Amino acid sequence: MKDQNKKQEKQEILRHSTAHILASAVLEMFPEAKFAIGPAIENGFYYDFELPRTLIPEDLEILEEKMKNLVKTNIPFEKKQISIEEAIENFKKAKQNYKVELLEDLKNKGEKEVMIYKTGSFIDLCKGPHIESSGEINAQGFKLTKISGAYWKGDENREMLQRIYGVVFNDKKEFKKYLLQIEEAKKRDHRKLGKELDLFCFSDLVGPGLPMFTPKGTIIIEELKKEIESICKKHGFEKVITPHLAKIDLYKISGHAEKFAEELFHVTSEHKQNLVMKPVQCPHQTQIFASRPRSYRDLPIRYMESEKQYRAEKPGEISGLSRVIAITVEDGHSFCRIDQVKQELKNMVQIIKDFYEPLGLWGNHWVSLSVRDYEHPEKYIGEPKDWDKCEKILEEISNEMGLEAKRCEGEAALYGPKLDFMFKDALGKEIQIPTVQLDFATPKKFELVYTNEKGEKVNPVMVHRAILGSYERMLVLLIEHFAGAFPVWLSPVQVSILPVSEKFNDYAQKVSEKLQEADVRVEIVNSDDSLGKKIAETTKQKVPYILVVGEKETENETVAVRERDSKESPANAKARAGKQNEMKTDEFLERILKEIETKKL
Amino acid sequence: MKDQNKKQEKQEILRHSTAHILASAVLEMFPEAKFAIGPAIENGFYYDFELPRTLIPEDLEILEEKMKNLVKTNIPFEKKQISIEEAIENFKKAKQNYKVELLEDLKNKGEKEVMIYKTGSFIDLCKGPHIESSGEINAQGFKLTKISGAYWKGDENREMLQRIYGVVFNDKKEFKKYLLQIEEAKKRDHRKLGKELDLFCFSDLVGPGLPMFTPKGTIIIEELKKEIESICKKHGFEKVITPHLAKIDLYKISGHAEKFAEELFHVTSEHKQNLVMKPVQCPHQTQIFASRPRSYRDLPIRYMESEKQYRAEKPGEISGLSRVIAITVEDGHSFCRIDQVKQELKNMVQIIKDFYEPLGLWGNHWVSLSVRDYEHPEKYIGEPKDWDKCEKILEEISNEMGLEAKRCEGEAALYGPKLDFMFKDALGKEIQIPTVQLDFATPKKFELVYTNEKGEKVNPVMVHRAILGSYERMLVLLIEHFAGAFPVWLSPVQVSILPVSEKFNDYAQKVSEKLQEADVRVEIVNSDDSLGKKIAETTKQKVPYILVVGEKETENETVAVRERDSKESPANAKARAGKQNEMKTDEFLERILKEIETKKL
Repeated sequence: MKDQNKKQEKQEILRHSTAHILASAVLEMFPEAKFAIGPAIENGFYYDFELPRTLIPEDLEILEEKMKNLVKTNIPFEKKQISIEEAIENFKKAKQNYKVELLEDLKNKGEKEVMIYKTGSFIDLCKGPHIESSGEINAQGFKLTKISGAYWKGDENREMLQRIYGVVFNDKKEFKKYLLQIEEAKKRDHRKLGKELDLFCFSDLVGPGLPMFTPKGTIIIEELKKEIESICKKHGFEKVITPHLAKIDLYKISGHAEKFAEELFHVTSEHKQNLVMKPVQCPHQTQIFASRPRSYRDLPIRYMESEKQYRAEKPGEISGLSRVIAITVEDGHSFCRIDQVKQELKNMVQIIKDFYEPLGLWGNHWVSLSVRDYEHPEKYIGEPKDWDKCEKILEEISNEMGLEAKRCEGEAALYGPKLDFMFKDALGKEIQIPTVQLDFATPKKFELVYTNEKGEKVNPVMVHRAILGSYERMLVLLIEHFAGAFPVWLSPVQVSILPVSEKFNDYAQKVSEKLQEADVRVEIVNSDDSLGKKIAETTKQKVPYILVVGEKETENETVAVRERDSKESPANAKARAGKQNEMKTDEFLERILKEIETKKL
Repeated sequence: MKDQNKKQEKQEILRHSTAHILASAVLEMFPEAKFAIGPAIENGFYYDFELPRTLIPEDLEILEEKMKNLVKTNIPFEKKQISIEEAIENFKKAKQNYKVELLEDLKNKGEKEVMIYKTGSFIDLCKGPHIESSGEINAQGFKLTKISGAYWKGDENREMLQRIYGVVFNDKKEFKKYLLQIEEAKKRDHRKLGKELDLFCFSDLVGPGLPMFTPKGTIIIEELKKEIESICKKHGFEKVITPHLAKIDLYKISGHAEKFAEELFHVTSEHKQNLVMKPVQCPHQTQIFASRPRSYRDLPIRYMESEKQYRAEKPGEISGLSRVIAITVEDGHSFCRIDQVKQELKNMVQIIKDFYEPLGLWGNHWVSLSVRDYEHPEKYIGEPKDWDKCEKILEEISNEMGLEAKRCEGEAALYGPKLDFMFKDALGKEIQIPTVQLDFATPKKFELVYTNEKGEKVNPVMVHRAILGSYERMLVLLIEHFAGAFPVWLSPVQVSILPVSEKFNDYAQKVSEKLQEADVRVEIVNSDDSLGKKIAETTKQKVPYILVVGEKETENETVAVRERDSKESPANAKARAGKQNEMKTDEFLERILKEIETKKL
């Protein structure tokens, strides 16, 4: 872990230093350039400039060339500590008003001295650290990638600057690996595949962030829903249905009106109802608990629901299915006694395992155990003794269930400690989805009670659990993880039947009916196209099985099975026609049903 | 039919005449009373008055007594035609300003003469007809039922009047029958049973018209959804998912922005999105159709969806599940070629039959075939030749499928002809739910096209179909129709296991697990209550099967089965304990599974 951190730190220094080299190059090209800021970011850096003209893509090549020269010359990064007044005077002289503004901000904060770095003729206000000299940068390891606009200080009322992005790696090999990854990510991009595989769509008339799921996308969502609901049902969760609206009072009590003030959709009508769209599911579920008297015997009461919630994202932040306004959240809660907390939590962790294992994600993950900031116990809601108990329970569960959770102090929610599960997709991207959270606060806020054995009214503990998270983000993860080649049980079309010619349509129909009766999702592709083209098209759709049926198959009551090969490109699909495997239709049916049942990957 | 109409007409005359008798009685009691209007309504009448004081329930008894005297006296209804000027003068003299206003309205419409009716000292402006004399009213056949407030002319800016309601029947027998029906309806009231059976709840914090479905209510909804979706899937419908929001532009094009102007919920956020909540599902579904090019080969394309839509009902009109803001609508559309319309419609009618037959509602229904108003063909959208064709198709279907649809001229929607299905519930209440409507307009409005065989772009025909309607109204129908004693397949709890004492909890658990494995919904009732009380409680919950397990059952691996008897009241449940039927657990399981599978009523 320490080595990892050190390596990362070193890379950040390299990336930020390359930003200075870009600034030097820009200064060569535009002596009147004004410099804003240029931090390191993931895989590289950016730098914001005020320039005498708008940059064009060709400028990046010129700047890259200049940067390579600066790298070759091996100019040193010279640092110097000076008084803030001197710095202001120098940058004023150089007409670097953005730097002056930054310096004045620092001065107002009480800073007396600042660090400046000089690389060639370029002088920057910068804390550092930096590399010793530009020769440490690998000339084959960086590239300028993009020009975009950016407001000074991110404030849309301030100056619009030009931003140049670059990527920086230690050497050519790392750089190539990155480029391949980018290419792979582009191929797997859920927006691209979602369209190609016809899983979801958007409409200008409906609006951004409001996806509509086509029959194929809906099948995947419904399969996931069936799966998660069936697992949760086994662990005692009962499904409920709540509306998408509520009076704002509900969220004033829960605290979401304040927490999600900006994201709340307000709903009005001619009848002056003062409603909002639900940004979360929890408060509605508390109201079902509250709808009748509960006894200690009734607990735990466990509700689950897969419903849309609505959050007003900034229009600029809406993107594909990753950031939407209509979020379909699989959410559930257990209302239980404190002596039931451990078993409840164990059940929930088990549910997470049961759900993620068949998807091949369990195992390649880590768990965070978020506890209080012990130096500030006052900021948390609930009895310290309940916190102690529950944090201990989480530790025990982590040990008993072999989670090896990483204890993260101060990361608990204000209302209780929690477990978060972090998974990695096929490209190594880390995604946090499932979470199990204890909540002492909400039942108090809503005055939820049950009658204990002594006849007293007591608040239950509320345990929040998200397993699948949102269906939209889960779809992003699955599309990109499987590159659209879903396991058979999740595939919208599981089998495509391709009659060799019209003559065999009847037999194709017969096979199709047999499979459909067993609930296999089948399509017959009987367009006028050639068999080769039909195979290529179906392969592009990533259908797990193609059954070719012709003379021989009709006679033998068989099908010629072509199994999906995720590495197979549509282009060579035709050439590999020999890879068909003739088998009895019943035998094929048995095989695919087994794969569906076992959720074979 | 004719006799039926005549009988109804006669009864209306009787009811309206009784309103006059009430007015006479009011005049006796309050000589300064001012009279508004007093029409006949279902089962009786009402009359609106301006009175010197607020009525109290006891006044109704006094008025009833006075009415009975007027009936006994057998005073005649004398009618007289007079000029409108004379009438105005007379009513002005009598200070009957509401009547004067009505007369002036008539005068403005060009009326020259009006009819007045005199009963005792009460004179009314009234078209009639009336009975000959008050003796025709059966003194045992009417009753004043309710006092309420009502605005003059229904305008909240006008005077608030007092309204007295009454019911009127031909004789005491009819009246008693009506009272029994009222009582039965009260017992079956879905609001009452919904609470008792814990099917749904409301919360002041969430708001009126926004029901939340508890685990039990959710089970019924999910069973219905599974059933309707499985039937529709067999007929080629594919499920889609669309969000609850859209830009208002969508509804400006569809025409709903205007049609539902008052019912639209407007949605705003800090990011200035101009959105509304969907009042119907159709426009969203058109956008999925529009999301990619379609060929004549792709049609019909059939979408279905069970989603909430939102309409801002007037707060005063919101009631239980019958009138809600959040309406979960089972909606579907077929986009097809004109040559496919007939088969599409036949499929849809078949779906309606398949869904309503197991509920015992098919057969006790009638169908309306709504066609154009042929005198005003200009007000309809679409080609007259397409209308001709489609109206003919509907006729053919009605004949071929034995629907005996009643042709209703002028009842078609503006965008196409339709079939509506009217069912009767157990109390004889008529309910219109399923509908099949042709729509030539919407595809044009949204510029939906497919490419025909000649390569031309053509608008498809859109066929709307509602089968189940809204889940909320369906729940009202089913709760009231079955008085909460749902068929086994719809029952939230199908089996309650009652151990005779704690000693048999293990065996109860064993039986429960066996049933649950077969997906039977079971609960074990092991409270501290006596067996008798437990039986009474479970009977109240209308659970189809109670299994009592004790010593004998544990030994024999059997269960003592008590079948639900819808006529059995909780009070005598205990007395009928002998009605238990011991059988092997497997035998019982087989029996209940068969009942579930066949949807036994």
